[in-house]
Amino acid sequence: MRMRKKKWAEPYINSHPEKAILNHDQYKGSWQKLFNKDEIHLEIGTGKGEYISSMSKLYPNTAWIGIEKETNVCAVCLKKVVEQDLNNVKIMNADANLINDYFASKEIDVIHLNFSDPWPKNSHSKRRLSSKVFLDRYYDILKDDGHIIMKTDNKQLFEFSIIEISNHKFKIEDFWVDFRREEHLEDTITEYEQKFMDLKQPIYRVIFKKVV
Amino acid sequence: MRMRKKKWAEPYINSHPEKAILNHDQYKGSWQKLFNKDEIHLEIGTGKGEYISSMSKLYPNTAWIGIEKETNVCAVCLKKVVEQDLNNVKIMNADANLINDYFASKEIDVIHLNFSDPWPKNSHSKRRLSSKVFLDRYYDILKDDGHIIMKTDNKQLFEFSIIEISNHKFKIEDFWVDFRREEHLEDTITEYEQKFMDLKQPIYRVIFKKVV
Repeated sequence: MRMRKKKWAEPYINSHPEKAILNHDQYKGSWQKLFNKDEIHLEIGTGKGEYISSMSKLYPNTAWIGIEKETNVCAVCLKKVVEQDLNNVKIMNADANLINDYFASKEIDVIHLNFSDPWPKNSHSKRRLSSKVFLDRYYDILKDDGHIIMKTDNKQLFEFSIIEISNHKFKIEDFWVDFRREEHLEDTITEYEQKFMDLKQPIYRVIFKKVV
Repeated sequence: MRMRKKKWAEPYINSHPEKAILNHDQYKGSWQKLFNKDEIHLEIGTGKGEYISSMSKLYPNTAWIGIEKETNVCAVCLKKVVEQDLNNVKIMNADANLINDYFASKEIDVIHLNFSDPWPKNSHSKRRLSSKVFLDRYYDILKDDGHIIMKTDNKQLFEFSIIEISNHKFKIEDFWVDFRREEHLEDTITEYEQKFMDLKQPIYRVIFKKVV
């Protein structure tokens, strides 16, 4: 997601240390202590933060950490969290390639990949958040009973992801080729997702679990 | 697939021993010798035989064995094979639950499940041809590099199948949530499949392989 340069973005992030994690590796191994919640959920690629802000209200006893690489986008996400004063959420303007610097082994309960960038060119397949190199990173930071929830409208990304998952040390626990044909109160629908639903396009979703 | 009783079905099958296998366990362990082809492919649930007759012409160097439980349907399938004199095809009016009586361990290269009965009721899930009990049977008769090709229009059957596969000793090699968005010259389109394509409904397909 690209936006024009927002001059306020970086200063805004730096001036909200109560909701933004500024030293990304500061809490490695001690996230549980920081939040003191039942579970720690990590969203990689928050975009403008509609999913994480909505889910964090749906699950108030869960700690939510959101990572977004694009500074401008991250600032928009952080603004939602600040303005709604969501006390179980922290946002990081950080790079998903470095998550093993930010989180210790077996520190995370659930990872969320919500409408990730499909990186359609084959030559960019390693940038997809469900490629083997990322699955390796997730495998490390997830608890032994941890799992990953992925949702997308993109056929090619979903097809790629299922093959990558099946060839890694994960097993599929739940799986939908048309997630919205039934109501799912456990999940939230963002404006972005609603657009595809309005066009009657299917939403794909998979939940997969570490095999230890 | 149910049809009215066809009085000619059973006599027809019995009078064509050149294309119909009448003693189902007669060739256990010696199918390769019977056909003398490059590979042995097995279709479970041939229906009226449009897929197997078409595929056997597309792949003439492959041996094709078709199993169909319903006698009347099986006779219609066999008629296609007889009338076109397909010499690389044998048809069996047999029960897929007993395939381990008909085939030895590691005797089959590829199993085809083409638009299998979805058995929509949960209480019938063990009858689905991709349920664990069937995957166990397939695992045994498949060669170590053998694989299974499954195609369906049925969302629920496909979702169920992917979870069953992921929890078994198979890995997914290829996977489509909309197989017909591109041309696939390696596969054939039956009239039944064409109906769904005309309605713009997606066709789901997965190829999965034994993990040894």
